[in-house]
Amino acid sequence: MTRIADVPADFAEDQLDGFVAVYGGRLRRVTGGVVARAAGEPTVAVVVGGGSGHYPAFAGLVGPGFATGAVVGNIFTSPSAAHVYSVAKAAHRGRGVVLTFGNYAGDVMNFGIAADRLRAEGIDTRIVLVTDDVASAPAEDERRGIAGDFVVFKALGAAAAAGLDLDAVERAGQAANAATRTLGVAFSGCTMPGAAAPLFHIEPGMLGLGLGIHGEPGIRDVPMPTATGLAELLVTGVLEAAPRTGPARVGAILNGLGTTKYEELFLLWARVLPLLEAAELEVVEPEVGELVTSLDMGGCSLTLTWLDGELEPLWRADAYAPAYRKQAAPLAATLASAAETEDTAADETLAFATPSPAAAALAVSVAEAAELVTGLLRDHEHELGAIDAVAGDGDHGRGMLRGAEAALSAIDRTVERGAGAGAVLAAGGRAWAEQAGGTSGVLWGAALEAAGAALDDAAAAFSDDSAGTAVVAFTGAILDLGRAEPGDKTLVDALLPFRDELTGRLADGASLAKAWAGAALIASEAAAATSALRPKRGRARPLADKSVGTPDAGAASFSLIACAVGDLLAGGDRLTTDHQTNYYWTERTPS
Amino acid sequence: MTRIADVPADFAEDQLDGFVAVYGGRLRRVTGGVVARAAGEPTVAVVVGGGSGHYPAFAGLVGPGFATGAVVGNIFTSPSAAHVYSVAKAAHRGRGVVLTFGNYAGDVMNFGIAADRLRAEGIDTRIVLVTDDVASAPAEDERRGIAGDFVVFKALGAAAAAGLDLDAVERAGQAANAATRTLGVAFSGCTMPGAAAPLFHIEPGMLGLGLGIHGEPGIRDVPMPTATGLAELLVTGVLEAAPRTGPARVGAILNGLGTTKYEELFLLWARVLPLLEAAELEVVEPEVGELVTSLDMGGCSLTLTWLDGELEPLWRADAYAPAYRKQAAPLAATLASAAETEDTAADETLAFATPSPAAAALAVSVAEAAELVTGLLRDHEHELGAIDAVAGDGDHGRGMLRGAEAALSAIDRTVERGAGAGAVLAAGGRAWAEQAGGTSGVLWGAALEAAGAALDDAAAAFSDDSAGTAVVAFTGAILDLGRAEPGDKTLVDALLPFRDELTGRLADGASLAKAWAGAALIASEAAAATSALRPKRGRARPLADKSVGTPDAGAASFSLIACAVGDLLAGGDRLTTDHQTNYYWTERTPS
Repeated sequence: MTRIADVPADFAEDQLDGFVAVYGGRLRRVTGGVVARAAGEPTVAVVVGGGSGHYPAFAGLVGPGFATGAVVGNIFTSPSAAHVYSVAKAAHRGRGVVLTFGNYAGDVMNFGIAADRLRAEGIDTRIVLVTDDVASAPAEDERRGIAGDFVVFKALGAAAAAGLDLDAVERAGQAANAATRTLGVAFSGCTMPGAAAPLFHIEPGMLGLGLGIHGEPGIRDVPMPTATGLAELLVTGVLEAAPRTGPARVGAILNGLGTTKYEELFLLWARVLPLLEAAELEVVEPEVGELVTSLDMGGCSLTLTWLDGELEPLWRADAYAPAYRKQAAPLAATLASAAETEDTAADETLAFATPSPAAAALAVSVAEAAELVTGLLRDHEHELGAIDAVAGDGDHGRGMLRGAEAALSAIDRTVERGAGAGAVLAAGGRAWAEQAGGTSGVLWGAALEAAGAALDDAAAAFSDDSAGTAVVAFTGAILDLGRAEPGDKTLVDALLPFRDELTGRLADGASLAKAWAGAALIASEAAAATSALRPKRGRARPLADKSVGTPDAGAASFSLIACAVGDLLAGGDRLTTDHQTNYYWTERTPS
Repeated sequence: MTRIADVPADFAEDQLDGFVAVYGGRLRRVTGGVVARAAGEPTVAVVVGGGSGHYPAFAGLVGPGFATGAVVGNIFTSPSAAHVYSVAKAAHRGRGVVLTFGNYAGDVMNFGIAADRLRAEGIDTRIVLVTDDVASAPAEDERRGIAGDFVVFKALGAAAAAGLDLDAVERAGQAANAATRTLGVAFSGCTMPGAAAPLFHIEPGMLGLGLGIHGEPGIRDVPMPTATGLAELLVTGVLEAAPRTGPARVGAILNGLGTTKYEELFLLWARVLPLLEAAELEVVEPEVGELVTSLDMGGCSLTLTWLDGELEPLWRADAYAPAYRKQAAPLAATLASAAETEDTAADETLAFATPSPAAAALAVSVAEAAELVTGLLRDHEHELGAIDAVAGDGDHGRGMLRGAEAALSAIDRTVERGAGAGAVLAAGGRAWAEQAGGTSGVLWGAALEAAGAALDDAAAAFSDDSAGTAVVAFTGAILDLGRAEPGDKTLVDALLPFRDELTGRLADGASLAKAWAGAALIASEAAAATSALRPKRGRARPLADKSVGTPDAGAASFSLIACAVGDLLAGGDRLTTDHQTNYYWTERTPS
């Protein structure tokens, strides 16, 4: 959705006011657009343009080494001939004008009329069309311009900045366009300011192949692939339309359309790059990010430019526009520095003493419990996330699962190496903290490590009380590190009653299985009772009101685990068939 | 939606692979994050961090003048202590380490444990917490860190780059945090990779006040204001929490959360700036854009930093990170250049000869028709947009309305100045082309101008045939300029049959009203018949298949206007009560 506006019909003008308010020191507003403030020797004027809604294109590309001026039309609408003329007239410094824009009928007409008018006044004016979109037409000169705009505009801007004359600048732009190919995909449509619905819809799980940058739907919908599949789709499509075959150096853009995140683009680039390398293409200074957008459209496009000795320096050249800044100087020292040690983190393997047979046997039980808990957290990942999302960031389920998986893996390895239960638990805790991160990760990791340290792997036998000792150590680590008080609506609200019930029952002579079962029941009830509390600590604090009515996610996951371990101690089957445990859980899960 | 992934749980790692693939020349990957390649004299190491999903924060901020290293956790999850330690160890160059991050429980614990471990190894390590979010807690030191992260990190990075020692760098960061306040709003929730639904929902028409950057909902939902109202909400909220009152120089960030567009932020900035100026705040080098995001969340935040003599140079200092690049040098010549002529566009007023009484009377009818057509297009703006959106960019309704409004305004002014019908039509056409832009704008503008030129304002009387002459001129201009052939699925497919029917009937002696009514009927049928055609020209071409079954938007709007003018000539009432015209229209509008 495009949301911020006063009068939607004035959106394009209004946003240009704000843009000029930010960047007025380096460019000035003229009728129909913006022009860079003149500096240094006169150069050929490179005037870019088209409709609004494509930022950084087009106003964001005005500056040293890039465009001299930008004509800013209404959203997705060609600017008028009068506006093109106005901007070009203001940008002209006596060495001629190149008008450059994507190949759309409205732009061709309006820029064409303006060119005639400029020529009639004696201003030598050339037109360089961008036609990079391989999905838009079979004939190269009939294709429309999408993210390739960026490549062609930059080549023209760099050539002009280098002081070349009008003929040479025009030739550079034509060469850049002839060497550039783009294929794009859309995941979701874009919404015009003031409109209630997007210009087009794509069904969930599909993508539109061959996107436009004006809210046009793709030319055909295909099922949404994985990132790896998407990389193959884009690379294959661009290479099928390559201007020449064989090894080459290429400039590349992985462009985001508006709502596709930088992180998603980086992830995709990690899949695209090996495919290009496999095709014997050496990528030169790739750009991954938003360069030519389409309001709030979801999607991306891959652009390749086959470089030669003339184009490569233009592609690599410095530029300094509001939305695109590239300078070699700040990195010169960095790039010249010698290769450094690539990593400093030690892969620490815990040392341990040879355990007693009892400790070795108990280690196997620990591994069994870890496997149970990991499966349990996998089954409940999304419920725990939903609880956390009510007044938090929704990452509790994923964080717990990631920690448990890391712990399980370390526990299994440590058992195989022949360690006792204490060393195994400690290794699991360390791995949990290492891999999970987050608040729960550091607490669970430290707690398990403390519990492990409380078990003596040299002991000839383990009494039921030793489990109590481990639980006391587990609890102590969490209290020390987390510093939460009872009633703060944290894990502690379930953990303390659990510890007290367990140690009390053990002191009264109950078996570990019975004592644990009773303590787990108390923990479940205490976790459920956190629903009534207002959180007092951590990031949930500002959302205290929203939290009331939902249990604390950390207390919920603890009680879930406590119940499952209790089932295991009682010789019960896995949780999925255990009615009692599920009862405590499902009764208290928000729908 | 976050869409691009292979294994959602590996998203954070996978995206970091791609990021390093793009920027590996200037930074290197270490366990847990990235570190700038060392260059020049050793400086204090500034290590930033937190969870992923906030790009440019945090990895995008590593580079000369900014962070030395970034710890990269899982999505919205604190990195582990081991990873913080690993990155800090790699970043350290013998002058000590500052660990800096937003105030969240998980980060406080994990960075705290890492700091202890670094100190135990003899590395002097300081912690600078960011606490800028005024909505998160009343007490300043309990607030969480959101977009103010950027300000504090930059101050630390600039202080380190200036060669200051650890004490001074730490003090600069503490001072920056103490001087910084942020208030944010959310329009829509964000979706974790692999998840089917966002972490929270905001009802349409509402906004969440006091957003978090981890998918937390706002602290309360309020009705979505206009841009002006939103600016007041943000400025008022930040100023209520100001660290000091009275005139001041401030750094400012208007930060986008992920899916809020740069254009929207610029528009909002144009509303925010006057409010700050009214509060006697002088804004220094504002940043408007995405600096600290939250996956694909919609929303924005306003950050102000009250500058003093120490902080201002740090705020203004050069930096060169992947996602944030600021260099004074490229603009030095620009900013030094003298003020230039602010505009070159002439406001041309059409000259005209004194018209005959008949031409002056006809001019009033032209104005009446223009008013009718403008109202008609206003009523049908969205239907025309919907037709256009099926295989185009959906801007036809808005473009036609904008042109008609501009023409109406020029026509009214020209009538008031006493012009005849020809001059009035020509002025309307010129204004249409000037203001509307786009393909339809240039065609309609040129056509009306040609029609006006075909009318002789000196004529003592206007026969019905003169209307025919004007229509022939109108049509000729569109054929010359647009170069479309019949069957190309354009305006021409309705226009040519209209012209031929009108001139034929007039030649047969029909009255203008009757001839026009017949021609309008033919135009309606011809426009409807374009549904069966595949487009052959313009940007709709690649979407030819999707277009079949829907009429051409330009033909549809032409026939709509032709019918309405026919009603006027027949002495009928306005279109809204005319059943016949509406019949032709509604029968052919896609639902």
